[in-house]
Amino acid sequence: MAVNSPLPIAADLKPVAGIEIGYAEAGIKKPNRKDVLVMKLAPTATVAGVFTLNRFCAAPVQISKAHLAAASANSGASGKPIAALLVNTGNANAGTGELGLSLANETCAALAAQLGVDAAQILPFSTGVILEPLPAAKVIAGLPQAIAGLKADNWYNAAEAIMTTDTQPKAGSRTVTIGGHTVTMTGISKGAGMIKPNMATMLGYLAFDAKVAQPVLDQLVKHAADHSFNCITIDGDTSTNDSFMLIATGAGALEITSVEQPEYAQLRDAVTELSLFLAQAIVRDGEGATKFMSIIVEEGANVEECRKIAYSIGHSPLVKTAFFASDPNLGRILAAIGYAGVDDLDVSKLNLYLDDVWVAKNGGRNPDYKEEDGQRIMKQSEITVRVKLARGAATATVYTCDLSHDYVSINADYRS
Amino acid sequence: MAVNSPLPIAADLKPVAGIEIGYAEAGIKKPNRKDVLVMKLAPTATVAGVFTLNRFCAAPVQISKAHLAAASANSGASGKPIAALLVNTGNANAGTGELGLSLANETCAALAAQLGVDAAQILPFSTGVILEPLPAAKVIAGLPQAIAGLKADNWYNAAEAIMTTDTQPKAGSRTVTIGGHTVTMTGISKGAGMIKPNMATMLGYLAFDAKVAQPVLDQLVKHAADHSFNCITIDGDTSTNDSFMLIATGAGALEITSVEQPEYAQLRDAVTELSLFLAQAIVRDGEGATKFMSIIVEEGANVEECRKIAYSIGHSPLVKTAFFASDPNLGRILAAIGYAGVDDLDVSKLNLYLDDVWVAKNGGRNPDYKEEDGQRIMKQSEITVRVKLARGAATATVYTCDLSHDYVSINADYRS
Repeated sequence: MAVNSPLPIAADLKPVAGIEIGYAEAGIKKPNRKDVLVMKLAPTATVAGVFTLNRFCAAPVQISKAHLAAASANSGASGKPIAALLVNTGNANAGTGELGLSLANETCAALAAQLGVDAAQILPFSTGVILEPLPAAKVIAGLPQAIAGLKADNWYNAAEAIMTTDTQPKAGSRTVTIGGHTVTMTGISKGAGMIKPNMATMLGYLAFDAKVAQPVLDQLVKHAADHSFNCITIDGDTSTNDSFMLIATGAGALEITSVEQPEYAQLRDAVTELSLFLAQAIVRDGEGATKFMSIIVEEGANVEECRKIAYSIGHSPLVKTAFFASDPNLGRILAAIGYAGVDDLDVSKLNLYLDDVWVAKNGGRNPDYKEEDGQRIMKQSEITVRVKLARGAATATVYTCDLSHDYVSINADYRS
Repeated sequence: MAVNSPLPIAADLKPVAGIEIGYAEAGIKKPNRKDVLVMKLAPTATVAGVFTLNRFCAAPVQISKAHLAAASANSGASGKPIAALLVNTGNANAGTGELGLSLANETCAALAAQLGVDAAQILPFSTGVILEPLPAAKVIAGLPQAIAGLKADNWYNAAEAIMTTDTQPKAGSRTVTIGGHTVTMTGISKGAGMIKPNMATMLGYLAFDAKVAQPVLDQLVKHAADHSFNCITIDGDTSTNDSFMLIATGAGALEITSVEQPEYAQLRDAVTELSLFLAQAIVRDGEGATKFMSIIVEEGANVEECRKIAYSIGHSPLVKTAFFASDPNLGRILAAIGYAGVDDLDVSKLNLYLDDVWVAKNGGRNPDYKEEDGQRIMKQSEITVRVKLARGAATATVYTCDLSHDYVSINADYRS
């Protein structure tokens, strides 16, 4: 029951030169389900990523960070670049201690052997249940099927292979012309619960066929994540496994070696736009979601306080259930603003809007506000909450969804 | 559907000499419902309180703080002490700006006139819907009925008169002997949603018949709140109206003038115990609650980090839905610990217990942990989650409940 989220059409997802994709049904948690994904990269590719800040970060996250750091350090030298990404669903390999690291390393070694590269050239990712040992043997048994099926035109299957409680695959493609060169980019994402990225959220992969120097890509991935995956929340739970990876395959004609190059800004904006599309798709498919809300906090003294307030509104179960009920019980938004932790906030200057309806004026009810106007907006499936702080010029936006009966059902039944 | 919360029995609630209680059915939100409460104090009484830290603190909270500060400053001098408390349900008078202050002042003035005291000797309190004007005329119209009914033996009705979404009244009495004197104490509380006190929670009133100097009572209320109302959470929403008031009527024989006096510690512990009982009663009656959880974080470097982790667990919708489902999906607890914001937490030393079951050992699954043991505990209606950080000797406890379908139903339908 995703909110206004168009199902991707396989034919619309464009292959990106320099990356091939294969998958397997390995029976990790359930049979007859795509649950292992291999993305094989051209030797020209550079990769950059951002990962969860959860202290219980999963074994594969720890390993991917280490492998990525080693490959990045070698970038431009004779070092060995990242050769493939390996993703499994059905098990997060988190909260698994030393055993978890050793099992994740085993899967890397197995894939590396079959691709003729080093284990350190593999980036592993996992998503699923926490605190249970990774069935590494099942992952490894699925690799030959995934490798045999490697092909460029396989993004739809990739989007399906990383789904867990998602109700639909999430993917998009863009073609942009930058500096006279055509750049093709395709991305996928997954995630529907345990979503309050403290960096990126859940799993997101975006590849394009330009050649981008490692330091430039490192900067680009941070910019894209900060303006997309880092602006969403479903339930305020930051996962142990969140990862967002940006892959520049280097197979196309565009080459960017510095952020000062005029083409950089164009590429950055195109990548960020697609990243935001993928991030919003996660919210639209949030567990039990029936509404999509953009929470915009403006006129803040700094971005940090705007984000605090936007997240405080976006996390409030009372605000989220009111949206679910289409009930303009908007005082709950004021309460959430009030406890956001901005200690010197002068609420007597604050204004609150619901789409174009001015609800609260100078901290109190706007005398011209009519209940039926609030009711009209609350019935929509997409709603913008706008808070004006009258403290400065900073702004922040957070995307979230409502809290419904289905969220409780989905999460009460998740493992069964 | 409160969790193991015995309904108070009117006959068990002991009158406290020096305080009389009256109520009215004023039809503030709905007819035929006790919604106005007056508590009239003896001139010997001292009062101390703690209030919400929400920046959108309600008009009555602002006024009560000012009146209390004035009365406290006058304590011991010829000043005028607090004469009465006035509580209404059905409307929070929050997010109401200047108009809200003026309407709350009107109700104080009306009660003061009828009691022959100054308006500044009245403490007003409100709970209910935010962002709607207080129907002050209805409150005022209810005052004669409340005043006519003033009597000492009226605590059960008081507990009922402050209920909103509560399914049952919350009250308790204790009799303790301190320094050879019998002290009688009775308290009431209310609250079932928007509960994550940033000080005290919702409304709590506790009176006893000792005579206590103002500075001592100020210290006592803070201690009692920090060990009771400040340790509970239902949904992480801090209300605009939270207030906890401690009333020493001065009508009994015990007199405490200094915290150094040996009797102080005894009184403090008795008051704190009853406060904790009243605070836990709020969690047991949490909106939709089916489980009562004590989250104990031990071996922390300081109390602050223990509280961060305990609240992170207690607020996680994923943890709360797992408890609702009696599903030992305990990796969710690790995830919540990991994103609690303790940046240098070494999870490889962390241990997690569910009652007596050792679930996670040194950051990974305890090899001896069996799913059926976790399952056995999860089926209970009262569960202790114990986290050992191996960082020091600090500890903190938070009490919370699960997140059920009924929470969503109650909050989606609250105003209808």
